[in-house]
Amino acid sequence: MSEALALGPKESAQAPRAAPREVWKKGGRLLSVLLAVNVLLLACTLISGGAFNKVAVYDTDVFALLTTMMLLAALWILFYLLRTARCPEAVPYRDAHAGPIWLRGGLVLFGICTLVMDVFKTGYYSSFFECQSAIKILHPLIQAVFVIVQTYFLWVSAKDCIHVHLDLTRCGLMFTLTTNLAIWMAAVVDESVHQAHSYGNASHTRLTPDLERASSSSGGDACSCNTAICQIFQQGYFYLYPFNIEYSLFASTMLYVMWKNVGRLLAAALGHSHTPSPPSLFRETYFAGPILGLILFMVGLVVFIIYEVQVSGEGARTQQALVIYYSFNIVCLGLMTLVSLSGSVIYRFDRRAMDHHKNPTRTLDVALLMGAALGQYAISYYSIVAVVVGTPRDLLGALNLAHALLMIAQHTFQNVFIIESLHRGPPGEEPPRESPPKEPCQGLTFANLDALHALPACPSTPRLVKPSSADPQEAVAIILTPRGHWRRRCLRDISLFLLLCNVILWIMPAFGARPHFSNTVEVDFYGYSLWAAIVNICLPFGIFYRMHAVSSLLEVYVLS
Amino acid sequence: MSEALALGPKESAQAPRAAPREVWKKGGRLLSVLLAVNVLLLACTLISGGAFNKVAVYDTDVFALLTTMMLLAALWILFYLLRTARCPEAVPYRDAHAGPIWLRGGLVLFGICTLVMDVFKTGYYSSFFECQSAIKILHPLIQAVFVIVQTYFLWVSAKDCIHVHLDLTRCGLMFTLTTNLAIWMAAVVDESVHQAHSYGNASHTRLTPDLERASSSSGGDACSCNTAICQIFQQGYFYLYPFNIEYSLFASTMLYVMWKNVGRLLAAALGHSHTPSPPSLFRETYFAGPILGLILFMVGLVVFIIYEVQVSGEGARTQQALVIYYSFNIVCLGLMTLVSLSGSVIYRFDRRAMDHHKNPTRTLDVALLMGAALGQYAISYYSIVAVVVGTPRDLLGALNLAHALLMIAQHTFQNVFIIESLHRGPPGEEPPRESPPKEPCQGLTFANLDALHALPACPSTPRLVKPSSADPQEAVAIILTPRGHWRRRCLRDISLFLLLCNVILWIMPAFGARPHFSNTVEVDFYGYSLWAAIVNICLPFGIFYRMHAVSSLLEVYVLS
Repeated sequence: MSEALALGPKESAQAPRAAPREVWKKGGRLLSVLLAVNVLLLACTLISGGAFNKVAVYDTDVFALLTTMMLLAALWILFYLLRTARCPEAVPYRDAHAGPIWLRGGLVLFGICTLVMDVFKTGYYSSFFECQSAIKILHPLIQAVFVIVQTYFLWVSAKDCIHVHLDLTRCGLMFTLTTNLAIWMAAVVDESVHQAHSYGNASHTRLTPDLERASSSSGGDACSCNTAICQIFQQGYFYLYPFNIEYSLFASTMLYVMWKNVGRLLAAALGHSHTPSPPSLFRETYFAGPILGLILFMVGLVVFIIYEVQVSGEGARTQQALVIYYSFNIVCLGLMTLVSLSGSVIYRFDRRAMDHHKNPTRTLDVALLMGAALGQYAISYYSIVAVVVGTPRDLLGALNLAHALLMIAQHTFQNVFIIESLHRGPPGEEPPRESPPKEPCQGLTFANLDALHALPACPSTPRLVKPSSADPQEAVAIILTPRGHWRRRCLRDISLFLLLCNVILWIMPAFGARPHFSNTVEVDFYGYSLWAAIVNICLPFGIFYRMHAVSSLLEVYVLS
Repeated sequence: MSEALALGPKESAQAPRAAPREVWKKGGRLLSVLLAVNVLLLACTLISGGAFNKVAVYDTDVFALLTTMMLLAALWILFYLLRTARCPEAVPYRDAHAGPIWLRGGLVLFGICTLVMDVFKTGYYSSFFECQSAIKILHPLIQAVFVIVQTYFLWVSAKDCIHVHLDLTRCGLMFTLTTNLAIWMAAVVDESVHQAHSYGNASHTRLTPDLERASSSSGGDACSCNTAICQIFQQGYFYLYPFNIEYSLFASTMLYVMWKNVGRLLAAALGHSHTPSPPSLFRETYFAGPILGLILFMVGLVVFIIYEVQVSGEGARTQQALVIYYSFNIVCLGLMTLVSLSGSVIYRFDRRAMDHHKNPTRTLDVALLMGAALGQYAISYYSIVAVVVGTPRDLLGALNLAHALLMIAQHTFQNVFIIESLHRGPPGEEPPRESPPKEPCQGLTFANLDALHALPACPSTPRLVKPSSADPQEAVAIILTPRGHWRRRCLRDISLFLLLCNVILWIMPAFGARPHFSNTVEVDFYGYSLWAAIVNICLPFGIFYRMHAVSSLLEVYVLS
């Protein structure tokens, strides 16, 4: 997004007076970050303390904290909505890149699932109302209110670049972001404790005392869940946790972009709007990508069901389930690696301009893709070390090793492909939108006036946009090439194929496949508690990576 | 640092040809980051695996990996030095902000201490040469070579903005950075295991089996260290670990800045040099800051010695040692908080211009200050929860609570003060150096040419620097105010006082004070293993924070 302070003479005369506000921009950010860090660390302390039954922090304390935070955040959101509704000039600019439709659509979808989860949770805790503290029933109800308010807020305000009450808005956004992260942490911890509990009962008796006692807390302290409806509620809300986790993360990313956009000045609002035309989801492809992807998706579902049915059986059936699971994953990951690589190769022949403009949404997307991949990387490296150093070398070890290596390769090449795609400009037939189209020389900015005089009248094509004192990376030489339809079709096929594969690879761990524990190689090598800590910390990031890759690939598909 | 692509007509004609390289800039960064992430995760896996004796990864594996990495990094450094020596045009620009003298001086100082540590380590492992694997003696020797080569490299090349073999250089720098981080991780793990061992023996018998077995490995597997000289070597090298840790982190930050500067274009090289005049360490102060700081420093040393002598005694003496320790820390932290706050208040009256120019060194400094503070924040929050929720409320609990709260306040206000100081321009009597001083209009950059025609001939004061399409934050209205000597003197006093306090607060934990374990509140509340994990992960960051704050405060002192 091209930005410029195009002030008229009146504004430039006021500029010295406005200087103190400019000075405070970093100060305001610092203040809100400090607030967020402190609240988040307090929440983190209580949540991690609450996960261990040995520690005298109870889950009611955690619920009370989360409920308070959600109430405060909801109040702030209502205040914000009221203020911007009454004072339209508070939001003079809107960032066209922020809150794209698939992100907001995903938010609404996950928000609805979270509401269903809250219903289940309320039902579950109401089943033994008499011996539970009231906060446990209040918590899902307040969460439902918070989810509704926040989803509406993000739907209407995700693109805002607000220009009033800067410090207050930054603090409010950061506090809401912190609330979402705290909910995410609480959900991840709760789910890990639940997983440790069910796997501990099913296939392992080597639970450490900490985990054992912790997991017993999730079933209620004094009462047990015996009725059929209560059991359904309990099962249901545990299966809906992944959606709640994704909802919190989606909301967090959108809030972060809003926070970055507070007080931002955009050239867009001055005349020509940069809003991209509403993207069409149905575009020409060769159908090879979606068909192959759908086949893999269906096979993956079957494999997942077979795995889930067989894995809790006796030794030979577990072994068989693992072989099927790993084989499918190896084929899928191998194909994805090859397809990502071929996508990168196609880009070598694609001479579309790279879009180097500032875009907080894209920067965050890239950072999240790279950061979230670390989770799966870490698990894979621990697996590789365990298989290579460990003594038993059998079929399962070989499959595990191949799986871990391919996982690393797939994440790496997929990230390279997605990041390169996101940095491509819009399709070739449209000339670079980012530079104002009216006057051919307007895109030029000069660091000194000598250079201006030295230049010929107006260089037309290729257009060399000279960066100013701020950022030489933005030096873009835009070369318009023929459209190359076959390339764009191929890229769409590739993105759809990768998208479907990422969905199936998301479904498996999100709905409970844990070959990490069924397969005994790593558990024997690292010991249960260390390996459980590694997997429970890293796997949520791996699951989030798949979700985020899906939304990024959808963007790649629409933009290519 | 002001940057501009001030190409002559010849270069601009070549620009379309140079475009593909520009396109690859992010690609090259991505490639090197992926390399670094993978190497680092592999090292992390082996190091964390090697720390647990139960896991079949031995410390010789870790030593072998580190030795290989250091050899490769040293070879790359030699190649780089050779290339830049033979081809001076490879480094057309130098970043004046990178590698300031105090950072390089600190690097040399810590490098020398690391060399001494390597001598001790070689001596220690040579004492029982016959029953050790050769890699344990080879490792410190190779490390010594690596430290010498790297220190020389960073001394001469820290400011380089290299423009040949961009991808190779980025990968080489990232690999060297990864090597330093791996050495840092190995040192932190080794020191934590050693601490757990000594505290486990001295005051706690509740070590988990993992830690107990792990710590026994540091004393050697088959032989024991019985001779007096061997014991001296062992003691010596453990006391020198903090310097090795700091050396690795200093080198990492300098390498990161070099990596950011690869391929960077600076306006500075075109004529007028921006190199600041060599700063003088002796400047006018009111002497109150340094004298008060020195008094606190001496008292702190005495308290530290009393604490170390008394804490391993029986109950009452431990109690007394803790009361003295906490009391001193509370006084020290309280004074530091007040002084930081008054520094921030002074800035409210200081109308020096804020320097918003791009400066990778400063951005990294700020990120490191904020990030490293998280370690101490986390410890403090866990302490607060333990004291508030835990049942026994005695003098020690109250002191602990006050200490934790003041720790948070002190880190917060000191960070605010340092970050604000680093963003101030140079002293008032020098007009903004960043904009070229020759022509008064040169500092102006325009987003469109209309604005140029609309403006009067040349606005003089206040100078409004109009940002280009890249970054509106850089809109700086520079207002020159009277010099205000008393303020600058006060700021120097404040920075010297804070500097000395940070040094004493660094010495205490770096040389082994662990009130976290002597004080039983948290250990009883969280259990030994959880609390040890929290402290051992977070404290190294807290110690690094102190070091980094000292170097930043030195910069504040010199620049104010």
